[in-house]
Amino acid sequence: MVNIAILGFGTVGSGVAEVIQENAVSITHNAAQEIGVKTIVDIRGFPDSPFAPKIIRDFSVVERDPDIQIVVETIGGKTVAYDYTKRALEAGKSVVTSNKELVASCGHELLEIARRKNVNYLFEASVGGGIPIIRPITQCLTANELDEIYGILNGTTNYILTRMITDAAPFSEILKDAQRLGYAEADPTADVEGYDAARKICILADLCFGKSVDPDRLWVEGISGVTLEDVEYARRLGYKIKLLGRAYRLQDGRIAAYVAPHLISKTSLLSNVDGVMNGIVVHGNALGECMFYGAGAGKRPTASAVVADVIDAVKHLKTRKYLGWEESQPGYVADIHEIPFRWYLRTGSGLETIGRAFGDVRLISYPGEYPGAGPGEYAFATPWMTGRELAEKTAGMEIRSKFRIL
Amino acid sequence: MVNIAILGFGTVGSGVAEVIQENAVSITHNAAQEIGVKTIVDIRGFPDSPFAPKIIRDFSVVERDPDIQIVVETIGGKTVAYDYTKRALEAGKSVVTSNKELVASCGHELLEIARRKNVNYLFEASVGGGIPIIRPITQCLTANELDEIYGILNGTTNYILTRMITDAAPFSEILKDAQRLGYAEADPTADVEGYDAARKICILADLCFGKSVDPDRLWVEGISGVTLEDVEYARRLGYKIKLLGRAYRLQDGRIAAYVAPHLISKTSLLSNVDGVMNGIVVHGNALGECMFYGAGAGKRPTASAVVADVIDAVKHLKTRKYLGWEESQPGYVADIHEIPFRWYLRTGSGLETIGRAFGDVRLISYPGEYPGAGPGEYAFATPWMTGRELAEKTAGMEIRSKFRIL
Repeated sequence: MVNIAILGFGTVGSGVAEVIQENAVSITHNAAQEIGVKTIVDIRGFPDSPFAPKIIRDFSVVERDPDIQIVVETIGGKTVAYDYTKRALEAGKSVVTSNKELVASCGHELLEIARRKNVNYLFEASVGGGIPIIRPITQCLTANELDEIYGILNGTTNYILTRMITDAAPFSEILKDAQRLGYAEADPTADVEGYDAARKICILADLCFGKSVDPDRLWVEGISGVTLEDVEYARRLGYKIKLLGRAYRLQDGRIAAYVAPHLISKTSLLSNVDGVMNGIVVHGNALGECMFYGAGAGKRPTASAVVADVIDAVKHLKTRKYLGWEESQPGYVADIHEIPFRWYLRTGSGLETIGRAFGDVRLISYPGEYPGAGPGEYAFATPWMTGRELAEKTAGMEIRSKFRIL
Repeated sequence: MVNIAILGFGTVGSGVAEVIQENAVSITHNAAQEIGVKTIVDIRGFPDSPFAPKIIRDFSVVERDPDIQIVVETIGGKTVAYDYTKRALEAGKSVVTSNKELVASCGHELLEIARRKNVNYLFEASVGGGIPIIRPITQCLTANELDEIYGILNGTTNYILTRMITDAAPFSEILKDAQRLGYAEADPTADVEGYDAARKICILADLCFGKSVDPDRLWVEGISGVTLEDVEYARRLGYKIKLLGRAYRLQDGRIAAYVAPHLISKTSLLSNVDGVMNGIVVHGNALGECMFYGAGAGKRPTASAVVADVIDAVKHLKTRKYLGWEESQPGYVADIHEIPFRWYLRTGSGLETIGRAFGDVRLISYPGEYPGAGPGEYAFATPWMTGRELAEKTAGMEIRSKFRIL
């Protein structure tokens, strides 16, 4: 019997307790021993929960309890979660978490403490919810030099963009719907502005390329600038608009890493990852391309990943999983403005201006069919150029939207 | 430094040697020590290979070499491969393989020997080529009761079916093309008749549901009966035809397991897995659905999976991976004819006969557009019924094609 503690009894934390109880038989089989939730730490009371007798407020009880070998941190954020995680590791307990913010910002430091204390810090649930992605990267693709990783990493924005396409309703309206349905939070900033995806692509880049990428210094564009006109122009060009987190190796050893809406071809598998689902594509030099798809969030899918990590921690109570990355030097992530892309532009400038700047491009126009898409508005795809070059070329033009094409 | 031997220097075996050499730096980093190919066993000579000096004919040299801790078996088949695998395990060496036939037929026995000798028998490459699937099931989805697994498990047949759709050319013609391109073997029976997919779904079912499923007793239908008319009728019904291996739990504790062509909805992600690619869907009670996509065969993708297993074996030289399943009792796999499905039927029988048997169904007809699809031919989807019920209902009807609908 291995005893665990759960810190934070919110959506994910309570899901973890429920899944451990519900699937006890198969979990015991898979871990080769029983796993029991001994203590739950939360400042709130949950008098109606069947787990109420286990809920305490004081983390130091867990910290001092030699019976608790594994701690699940599902508090979120970087303050209390950081303090408790550090203390749990220092107390010689393995820690399992779904906290992408903490892993993205402090993963290097916390993994270093885990290494020193000969325990594990595991975070499969921090990216892609229930989708296995951390372990496949660190254990299944180890024969490869990984070149690139990108994907739809945020379910809220993917839900909004999908509904904008299927319902032809504007961003603000769908956002309200998503909030009503529980797919978006009351303050949707972290999702909508891309910060959540940024944390996740940083963790993936850390693992794939071996050096830490700071989420606070990442180039991040959200989806609030995506209009219905963009959705329709993209469709006519053969694309869908999706918010991607993306990181890839450059030839000089640096990496490109950023979050931004992209036009992706309708023939690609990723373009069919719709609604709240996530999809992550990895490219390696032996493997070629593979994709992982599933529910990127939600109580039970996320709990599925957390509990799998708990089982893995149980199997590795006396050994360490190889997991970690180095600190990076300034300049490791290349300036986004120096990286070439193909661009989608929507402009109110005239044909002559467009032709002067870009030569022969395939223009898409549908004046009048949507409000705002008045006569004289055009959309088109540019040849490859850096953001800096694009800015020079479009100086003086009226640019209404500007997105990268994958 | 860990020394390995490779048994069988064909496509996969030589790929393994090449990937280990090419990605030596990252592999050494990931395994936390160097991995070297010490010996290669093959009855053929390869005088022009850079690995020629390592190639010997006598396996017993490897068997007796205490320096060789891990053996890669890429011979294939169940005769020599079985003998060498057993002897290597008995000699206390871990074995890594891509040999789906051997794992599907003798996995239980070989894993049992590995357990007894405290070594590992790993076979990530046996299903889905380079796609991580064995390890995700056994390590990432361990918190779930798994309900179902199915997928496109054979690249050759998927290539043929995809080209039948895109080129509207008949099976036999595309098969010749596939042979010319190296996507199909000179004797294509194992692929085309579904035996390859059968071995793979047996391995997946073994792992997901914990009891062995015998590939020789599985219900297996190949794709040689899929006609261009079926492809076109399916399209008009909103489906694509794909060869699926499929296994799922029944309520009474038994499982359903089989290989057969299916009509799958064009809106499903799996229907967009085209060409030689594979896609595998897993459903668990906590996770919901997730999908794994990638190259299901090929020298380098398969080598990617084999070498990842070698790295894992290196990390677990002194510990064992939890991998295994029990023997099953007769009757564990339910009689396919007793399991209900929705069916696609193509029939030359008249409307009255169809109506009498099936009542109101949505009939699709396009007489004359394709040769053979003469007047009076119809296709439609039936309600749910078992194969036995279907046979009774269609007694006396002229059934030209009959496939399950997912």
